[in-house]
Amino acid sequence: MGGDAPTVDDVGELGVLRSVLAVVEPAAADVGPGDDAAVLTTSTGRTVVTTDSMVLGLDWRDDWSSPQDVGVKVIAQNLADVVAMGARPTGVVVALAAEGATRVDWLVDLTRGMADELRRAGVGSFGGDLSGAPDGTVVIAVTALGDLPAGREPLLRANARVGESIIVSDVLGRSHAGLLVLLGEVAPSERAGTATQECVGWHRAPRPRYAGDEAVAAGVRCAMDVSDGLMLDAARIVRASSVRLAFDGDALRAMARPLEPVVGDRALECVLSGGEEHALLATSPEGRVPAGWHVVGRVEDGRGVTLDGESAQTEGWTHFGAR
Amino acid sequence: MGGDAPTVDDVGELGVLRSVLAVVEPAAADVGPGDDAAVLTTSTGRTVVTTDSMVLGLDWRDDWSSPQDVGVKVIAQNLADVVAMGARPTGVVVALAAEGATRVDWLVDLTRGMADELRRAGVGSFGGDLSGAPDGTVVIAVTALGDLPAGREPLLRANARVGESIIVSDVLGRSHAGLLVLLGEVAPSERAGTATQECVGWHRAPRPRYAGDEAVAAGVRCAMDVSDGLMLDAARIVRASSVRLAFDGDALRAMARPLEPVVGDRALECVLSGGEEHALLATSPEGRVPAGWHVVGRVEDGRGVTLDGESAQTEGWTHFGAR
Repeated sequence: MGGDAPTVDDVGELGVLRSVLAVVEPAAADVGPGDDAAVLTTSTGRTVVTTDSMVLGLDWRDDWSSPQDVGVKVIAQNLADVVAMGARPTGVVVALAAEGATRVDWLVDLTRGMADELRRAGVGSFGGDLSGAPDGTVVIAVTALGDLPAGREPLLRANARVGESIIVSDVLGRSHAGLLVLLGEVAPSERAGTATQECVGWHRAPRPRYAGDEAVAAGVRCAMDVSDGLMLDAARIVRASSVRLAFDGDALRAMARPLEPVVGDRALECVLSGGEEHALLATSPEGRVPAGWHVVGRVEDGRGVTLDGESAQTEGWTHFGAR
Repeated sequence: MGGDAPTVDDVGELGVLRSVLAVVEPAAADVGPGDDAAVLTTSTGRTVVTTDSMVLGLDWRDDWSSPQDVGVKVIAQNLADVVAMGARPTGVVVALAAEGATRVDWLVDLTRGMADELRRAGVGSFGGDLSGAPDGTVVIAVTALGDLPAGREPLLRANARVGESIIVSDVLGRSHAGLLVLLGEVAPSERAGTATQECVGWHRAPRPRYAGDEAVAAGVRCAMDVSDGLMLDAARIVRASSVRLAFDGDALRAMARPLEPVVGDRALECVLSGGEEHALLATSPEGRVPAGWHVVGRVEDGRGVTLDGESAQTEGWTHFGAR
């Protein structure tokens, strides 16, 4: 992030805020940025709150991702959590800690990406906080708020019931496939065509469907965001609901097939263990599958996660060495 | 943060969470930590939200502050912002980014400090997020939520009115005085006694009175948290309310006097420009001063911040070089 463009150290905190506020849209709040805190009126009095961060060098690399990509991704992963509770996002607050050498234009483009994804979800920002950070460090901590529509119960991991279908709101595996391409661990074949770009794009800047309302309309009561890998996230539902999630290998292999030209024989691994997908994993009353969703298994009596009846590896992404 | 004690890298994310969750109290939420997001019911449907971070090496030094101190401070500065809006804190979410070499016992003690200050304010935690970070980096981003009691309007910087008294909820200057001691820029005299410890203690771990309800009971409609220095924060009220804040030098010099044994002739500077106080600065209808508050000036027709009728320096703390 060197070069001649002004840095945070050059223009100071107020200079950064001035540049950044020019591209961000305030959320619908009674009191917006500029006071000690934002005030928002919720329609029902039930607020949903979640927080998730991205760290330079760990969650993104500047040679792989544009600042817009990073902005889109950090918002998407937070809004996906709000939506996974069955709530409608109302806005975010952003706490940014950035080294003094961070370029202001990088921050403005980061904010553009955040504003863009917020706009796609129909929400804005309640404000934020800018801190300094040690050399080489940029941490973006986003907290997202949402509102549970009147009369709606939250979608909980503990609500899966025997006999329900396991459904996902989108295909899986693209983010991890894109990561493998960026890491040079796979060599996409010529017939991969645009699939490679789609995977790399999804890894850099996922654009989830935010399909919470669709799930609720189909009678879903259990949902979660696929952020750490399908099998690992499924194990969380298993623990919370005391059920068995029995996945259908054929359905998941069908989902993996379009990834084969990109990642070869690692396609199923991408579908089963790839993180940062931000599709919804849910269970729905049998026979009720929202348009565009995929049925990938069944909730059964018992415990654990199975694939074609065999106990499945429930591994996925973690930030540190041990699990 | 070296030594033989287990680090984050040793025990992994889940290991840390297990250790940390043992000492944190969940906030009163319909759905607490463990799902994609927390769900809380507000009594009125008006939610207040703010975020503020602390960064190792910039906002604290491990040789000056214990992890408990850091935990108290990061919570206090966030709750003070919620209270400055006239709201009652309901809870926090914490996004922590920490290098792998961070000791688990340091994180547990940090959490103890956070839990302790949350308990003092009568609230808990809605959950959080743990990320890795580059070597040498620890960033703690807290987002605090609050609830505006039914029928209460938020206390805004724009609400100061000519003829009101300027009041503060506590004495000022201790945090900056403590910082000067820690920096070795001043040599406390022998007669300073416990005042030095009090100042250093306030710098490490301020324990604000959270006096929002007192302010509202006295008819206050304009308040803010003193976080960047009295004069600088006053200038923000001036801009928002289009008034003059005329400070009474005698009142502020009286406040500075107990600091003189600690910081000598820099006592008034501490009162005027010292940040991280987390007292409330407010304006109240004349003659209405809550018990324990201090009258320090008057709201006048005009613009700017004055001290004994002279235009005052409105400088304070900023994270970066430029202002």
